[in-house]
Amino acid sequence: MTQPGHGMAADIAEQPAGFARLLDGPHATAIAEVAAEIAARRPRNVLFVGRGTSDHAALYGAYLTEIRLGLPVASASPSAITLYGARPDFTGTLVVGVSQSGGSPDLTGVLSAARETGALTLAVTNNPESPLARAAELSVDVAAGHERAVAATKTYTAELLALLLLVEGIRAGDGRLPEAERAALAGLPELAETTLADRTPDEIAQRYRFAPHMVTTGRGYAYPTAREAALKLMETSYVPTLAFSGADLLHGPLAMTDTDVPVLAVVGDGPGGKSMGDVIERLRERKADVLTIGPAGRLAVPAVDERYSPLLDILPLQKLALALALAKGEDPDAPRGLKKVTSTL
Amino acid sequence: MTQPGHGMAADIAEQPAGFARLLDGPHATAIAEVAAEIAARRPRNVLFVGRGTSDHAALYGAYLTEIRLGLPVASASPSAITLYGARPDFTGTLVVGVSQSGGSPDLTGVLSAARETGALTLAVTNNPESPLARAAELSVDVAAGHERAVAATKTYTAELLALLLLVEGIRAGDGRLPEAERAALAGLPELAETTLADRTPDEIAQRYRFAPHMVTTGRGYAYPTAREAALKLMETSYVPTLAFSGADLLHGPLAMTDTDVPVLAVVGDGPGGKSMGDVIERLRERKADVLTIGPAGRLAVPAVDERYSPLLDILPLQKLALALALAKGEDPDAPRGLKKVTSTL
Repeated sequence: MTQPGHGMAADIAEQPAGFARLLDGPHATAIAEVAAEIAARRPRNVLFVGRGTSDHAALYGAYLTEIRLGLPVASASPSAITLYGARPDFTGTLVVGVSQSGGSPDLTGVLSAARETGALTLAVTNNPESPLARAAELSVDVAAGHERAVAATKTYTAELLALLLLVEGIRAGDGRLPEAERAALAGLPELAETTLADRTPDEIAQRYRFAPHMVTTGRGYAYPTAREAALKLMETSYVPTLAFSGADLLHGPLAMTDTDVPVLAVVGDGPGGKSMGDVIERLRERKADVLTIGPAGRLAVPAVDERYSPLLDILPLQKLALALALAKGEDPDAPRGLKKVTSTL
Repeated sequence: MTQPGHGMAADIAEQPAGFARLLDGPHATAIAEVAAEIAARRPRNVLFVGRGTSDHAALYGAYLTEIRLGLPVASASPSAITLYGARPDFTGTLVVGVSQSGGSPDLTGVLSAARETGALTLAVTNNPESPLARAAELSVDVAAGHERAVAATKTYTAELLALLLLVEGIRAGDGRLPEAERAALAGLPELAETTLADRTPDEIAQRYRFAPHMVTTGRGYAYPTAREAALKLMETSYVPTLAFSGADLLHGPLAMTDTDVPVLAVVGDGPGGKSMGDVIERLRERKADVLTIGPAGRLAVPAVDERYSPLLDILPLQKLALALALAKGEDPDAPRGLKKVTSTL
């Protein structure tokens, strides 16, 4: 019998190596080729579909698409297509399915339907032999290796980096990243190591041992991080955790914050982070217990271009979820009620 | 000093009259004219933007657009546009801003930016003189009248109905609904009266007096209802409430459900409701405390086409939120920390 959380700890620790693997060698070349092919096909807009953790990676892809490519992002409710038989015209749309396992029938259904109606389809998965990868015209392997824990960690950050490389490759046109971008990205594995070496998340987890629920928040590029941190806390520590964009938090949910609701706020130093100033102030007025994550945060993360920050900001939050689960006597490697591949239609 | 919750109760009670007002007379004509104009411009896709309650109405609009119009739905993160300066090409896109007050600067910013880049813009608001309505090329007045409580109720269902009338009017081409549709909709005010007359929500609210948090869930057309119910509970009763699509619930959050997590499940009798069978079963395996809302639910709602059900399903949930707030000694008319118009950039 292995130690509880051993698998998740190992998965988390492998993320710097996972970054390095994607940034260089055959995987980088493969992504560049897919990016060049997409650029040549000139999609008019991009649709992302994903579930759970992969939906948060997809959300990051959506921000990159809007901001870096200037392309509108399309959205599709899988249920509209799989349950209600909607067949929107996806001509000119790049449809990207993001899935760790590539085994979710509803995503495969969306990609197949989209391909039939003229979309360019792309699977971003950790399993290039999966049904999703086979259903799509193009496929990217995020090459994170076998994930031990049910809660996804290293496949999440690998999906983020693969989507970043794809979008920047499409932006470049030929799939090859500009030299400045390559130089900045080359530092990521080491920055990830530094971030993971900090033991603050382990220490601070004790403080949340008896918190009945938690709130996470962030804006812009940090919003996917807030969503993913909330999911990790729910999956591993069974703490109901609500994730809000900073703007949405002010539209109603703010009322339920008080001294007994811990808030984890991702505050970078780009436009998304700066816009959180007002949110933090309103939270402090409500005497909420706020923990910040970012370059100036209590959970410190190295300062990088806000566009790269989701790859680092999530790391201390993964560690926090793991430590909190262990503090509660749970085994985050095998959360109750969950399977690694979730089948929904 | 008025009685706590008096305003919210009055707002809730006015919903049948609000439906009747939109279904006939000058407001119906105005919506039909806007629908005909939109149909003539033949948008290739539709983008909805909203915040809080209005975002849930926008989500309903998105399902209708995909399923009834077969048009892809675009999505835009307001922050990508307002904070990061993204300027996606919205030529051929219908951009719909949904806002009770029409006073949210970020939505007005998105509509203005979209209009500059060639979008057809539409404001759906309860204030035809608002900045949002003035920024948009077309405007629909949901005509719900002054809302007394900070928590939106009658403006929400008025937004839902206005969006339904718009979409069906666009589908018809000339804005005029087919006779069968008109006949079905004509019964809505009375069905809403019947639904509101049921006192079960008031009785059942006591049971949740000490629930530390709650979960709402639904799929397809019922998902916006789950989201909106969660927001109402947070705004008025300060109960942290997590909303999940039935499919997403199985991807991770299921782990945190147990006997002490009350789940409110919206289960209609169309495809969305039927797909909840598996979700309910998995919840029961986890011994979750499940309350169903729908034609066969503990909170009973008349059976209608699933497309119309969001207009009725939310009614007992609004009453539940009100009753729970009162049971906790709170005044839902003036939730702590909230203002009627929320300004975010």
